[in-house]
Amino acid sequence: MSRAPFEYRTVDLTDEEFAADQAVYGRLTEALRRLNEVSLRTTVGHDLVAAVTEEVEAITARLEVEMIPANFGVVVTNNGRVRGYGNTVVGMRNPLAPPLSIVQDRVKGGASSEFFLNALYEGPPGKVHGGVLALVLDQIFGEAAAAGGTPGMTGTLTLRYRKPTALGACSAAAWVDSTAGIKTIVKGELRDAEGEVTVEAEGLFILPKWAREQIAASGETPPQYE
Amino acid sequence: MSRAPFEYRTVDLTDEEFAADQAVYGRLTEALRRLNEVSLRTTVGHDLVAAVTEEVEAITARLEVEMIPANFGVVVTNNGRVRGYGNTVVGMRNPLAPPLSIVQDRVKGGASSEFFLNALYEGPPGKVHGGVLALVLDQIFGEAAAAGGTPGMTGTLTLRYRKPTALGACSAAAWVDSTAGIKTIVKGELRDAEGEVTVEAEGLFILPKWAREQIAASGETPPQYE
Repeated sequence: MSRAPFEYRTVDLTDEEFAADQAVYGRLTEALRRLNEVSLRTTVGHDLVAAVTEEVEAITARLEVEMIPANFGVVVTNNGRVRGYGNTVVGMRNPLAPPLSIVQDRVKGGASSEFFLNALYEGPPGKVHGGVLALVLDQIFGEAAAAGGTPGMTGTLTLRYRKPTALGACSAAAWVDSTAGIKTIVKGELRDAEGEVTVEAEGLFILPKWAREQIAASGETPPQYE
Repeated sequence: MSRAPFEYRTVDLTDEEFAADQAVYGRLTEALRRLNEVSLRTTVGHDLVAAVTEEVEAITARLEVEMIPANFGVVVTNNGRVRGYGNTVVGMRNPLAPPLSIVQDRVKGGASSEFFLNALYEGPPGKVHGGVLALVLDQIFGEAAAAGGTPGMTGTLTLRYRKPTALGACSAAAWVDSTAGIKTIVKGELRDAEGEVTVEAEGLFILPKWAREQIAASGETPPQYE
């Protein structure tokens, strides 16, 4: 039976299975995050870099003997809570994710996060890439909409860059500004290590028809990442 | 002498040095990109994952004995052309970069790219993270502004998500819509593998005062990534 190259499956894990995954895959992913950063900053000689490259290729060969077909494609649920293993911003198994730990406020309808963006997230020298700031804000905004009870996908996103954001510690907060049916307006801002606002943003989040139909057909509640 | 944690240096390379860097570091970075993806998709047993994690940590230890202090912080120039080694979207030495190869049109003032976004760039199951689309568009828009002769940093960026973008092959194009002094308006769009427009965007790019002063003081021309 052929499988779609990018598929969507749900896996339920017990608390024990989830903890075991986190211990094993979490450590591998953390090790890769550090190796990614060190590979960018290292100034060791070409011979050592070449030798290490062959080791990396050998490790890859051992891991790729058994893989899911294309994307992570699995929504991992643990006691009814969705865990974003693959998500590029928060995914526990995604080495590209800084990762962000996002706190949802389900009372007021908002989300916030404190995080560190290292050399891997650089655009202008010493500064965070403007698009990376859009990336983290999009994720936090989506979680703010979900926390407000109206999850959705990004319809529009407007970013105002007030000043460059230095690499290093950052924080961001987002809150539901208003809702109307399937539409939610979220506002928020990002601050640098000094606490100065460097980016202001506004987003419109919509639960599209295809998603509402898919949710209705599956009987599942929409993903709310934790 | 203490060094700033995130510093900005320029290194000039001969063609031969640049080619040697590309051969050695380029292969390491490609190997890490593949390992990152495989680490996310592998379904091998926990014992193998744990063993491999120790090997990754050992490799990191060998590379981190000599490093630049914090960020890549180096603008690499080759015959007067800037090479973005560290940039998170196009950086030859950045394992997080897909990487994008962006073609600048200096006659019409625009930029375009065809690229592939794999499982590492996932948001909703099977779909590219909306923030990743913002990230790649921000980079392409910046290069379009530079190609139009008016480089700048992102002032505002507005994204309209028309439909979800499936993981896989994508393309994007951006063009200078208008310019006024230090301000440039860029418009563009992103298409999925079927050629359908999934995101439309508009950006205002500004060469800020601090950057103009820095450029005037250094006698350097503003970075135009290639």
